[in-house]
Amino acid sequence: MTAQALDGLLLLKNDIFLRALRREPTEYTPVWLMRQAGRYLPEYCATRKRAGSFLGLAKNPAFATEVSLQPLARYELDAAILFSDILTVPDAMGLGLDFVEGEGPRFERPLRNEGDILALREPDLADLGYVFDAVGEIRRALDGRVPLIGFSGSPWTLACYMVEGGGSSDFRTVKTMLYERPDLIHRVLSVNARAVSTYLNAQIEAGAQAVMVFDTWGGALADGAFQEFSLRYIREVFAHLKTEHAGEEIPSIVFTKGGGQWMEQLADSGASGVGLDWTVNLGAARRRIGAQCALQGNLDPVILFANEAAISKAAREVIDSYSDGRHGRQAIAGHVFNLGHGISQFTPPDAVKILVDTVHAYSADLAKS
Amino acid sequence: MTAQALDGLLLLKNDIFLRALRREPTEYTPVWLMRQAGRYLPEYCATRKRAGSFLGLAKNPAFATEVSLQPLARYELDAAILFSDILTVPDAMGLGLDFVEGEGPRFERPLRNEGDILALREPDLADLGYVFDAVGEIRRALDGRVPLIGFSGSPWTLACYMVEGGGSSDFRTVKTMLYERPDLIHRVLSVNARAVSTYLNAQIEAGAQAVMVFDTWGGALADGAFQEFSLRYIREVFAHLKTEHAGEEIPSIVFTKGGGQWMEQLADSGASGVGLDWTVNLGAARRRIGAQCALQGNLDPVILFANEAAISKAAREVIDSYSDGRHGRQAIAGHVFNLGHGISQFTPPDAVKILVDTVHAYSADLAKS
Repeated sequence: MTAQALDGLLLLKNDIFLRALRREPTEYTPVWLMRQAGRYLPEYCATRKRAGSFLGLAKNPAFATEVSLQPLARYELDAAILFSDILTVPDAMGLGLDFVEGEGPRFERPLRNEGDILALREPDLADLGYVFDAVGEIRRALDGRVPLIGFSGSPWTLACYMVEGGGSSDFRTVKTMLYERPDLIHRVLSVNARAVSTYLNAQIEAGAQAVMVFDTWGGALADGAFQEFSLRYIREVFAHLKTEHAGEEIPSIVFTKGGGQWMEQLADSGASGVGLDWTVNLGAARRRIGAQCALQGNLDPVILFANEAAISKAAREVIDSYSDGRHGRQAIAGHVFNLGHGISQFTPPDAVKILVDTVHAYSADLAKS
Repeated sequence: MTAQALDGLLLLKNDIFLRALRREPTEYTPVWLMRQAGRYLPEYCATRKRAGSFLGLAKNPAFATEVSLQPLARYELDAAILFSDILTVPDAMGLGLDFVEGEGPRFERPLRNEGDILALREPDLADLGYVFDAVGEIRRALDGRVPLIGFSGSPWTLACYMVEGGGSSDFRTVKTMLYERPDLIHRVLSVNARAVSTYLNAQIEAGAQAVMVFDTWGGALADGAFQEFSLRYIREVFAHLKTEHAGEEIPSIVFTKGGGQWMEQLADSGASGVGLDWTVNLGAARRRIGAQCALQGNLDPVILFANEAAISKAAREVIDSYSDGRHGRQAIAGHVFNLGHGISQFTPPDAVKILVDTVHAYSADLAKS
């Protein structure tokens, strides 16, 4: 840890997000939004234009810092998240990441046969230096305002892209391989699990104060397959993760979209917090896993297209659902407010202000009740 | 009921699907597949070509009969399902259904404002005569070989298409209306619920021996909204549904894709059986709702792209999961084998034979164990 990073840590002015993840009582419910630095912000689009491309933006620490800070200039968010792509790790493994406009990510050299998979190796961390540089630069730019979250895709989610070669509506290629040659998928997942934990640990050393694992496609797996091919390797990642750095605890969050049915197993994966999507009843989730983990979520992102009254009502309902009849600080302890999925690129920016301000005001009132 | 239909009923040679839905012991586990009459079959594509268009196929009872019977000629399936589209009801309400090649369904006159919604009326059943004619013709063509399932989209699923005007990745239009003007959505859903129960009752009178409600987009709703906007109207449909016709019990199935977390509420909706997708553990589901309902599902449709050994293993695992350690006929009683979603149009037809034959042979062995 550099002296500067240490200063940042000592001077953290708003640590409510970290305290909520430790399930300590807080004065109000902290809030941040998945994909909060993104296309719904005109200033993000302007920076991206200057960067020339999505990868030009993501691979340049100065640009990444600029866009990571943009939502904090508009909204009273309680955490910043590293701006990066979940596919940096397989890109550094040599798969050749590219973004085709309107089509999303593409790998030039996807894993399609046994030879490709046997040749797969963990990346050289030097090839991911731009990520760690961005983490350090964002930490300095934040100057202790709020904590910085580092992140990675889960081993399974990375494997989906690595085998499919891009996004997919049914994951037919990777799932067929999983069913026919589970040994090959297990090999990819083992390499990914080691790479992800190394990658997240390097983000922590560079200054990330919490980390999140996005298991975006875990919910595409059948029960049974989820435990064998996704959860098992999430556990491996957490088992090798630093939980402390420079004397500070580093909390972690796992989020499996569509994984509500597996919440007990996710709560037991080694993460400090479990992210939940909007299909989950937060009160019921708190009863099931709240004694073990903080909960993050879970507003339907589409609410942000509705009017002020509807946004405000829905935000209050999420907080009420979590409080589950409790009063005072116990009502909100252990909850990090978020959407149940990344914010839509079409979201009106003003809607986010209504949301953030409602979460703060309403939860502060509830904590005093 | 016509004399012919009565003959068909009396002569039903294979009633194992109906018995499983009544949770009576069966000699083996019945199996049918959602979208079993579909594009993965070359003979379906040939008929569709002759029909000129998808709607030309769906609206012509002779063609609908032909394609409904096609999968039964190839596989030992235990039920037939009416070939139709889930959007026939809103089409008959005057919304103007069309199919754009490669884009799916489109309504020419979607519901976009209060005026559209206040003008919405239940359809004249005469405009849906082609569906009931198809039901009668399929029953005659089946000649008692297996039972015929009628179906409808759920009130909420129909409303999604009616307001969006077609498919959607995030249902932004209908959900924004739901959050801002719940009164308008409730009005659409009330009309839909009455229309769907009338529609299904007319299918039953025309000869459908079981009915299924496809709540395809229920899983897009947040917890709370699901109960208010989807489940409530599914209950209304079942409350008005004939449960008996011509002295025979008419069982019903409800399927909410992504609805595993709400299975108790779905089991309590009035349906005889609950369809489950592949993210659900069938053994756990049986413990939770198996005393109340039959269960239908829940193989990942992507399995059908794998090799014979993998398909066969996965089919056995679903049956084992349902049996949950039981032996003999109790191991399989109350289970209708199906996929957890419609079969993919890219499925190799031979894979379906492997699946159906494995389900029959393995479950028959288990029932004798």
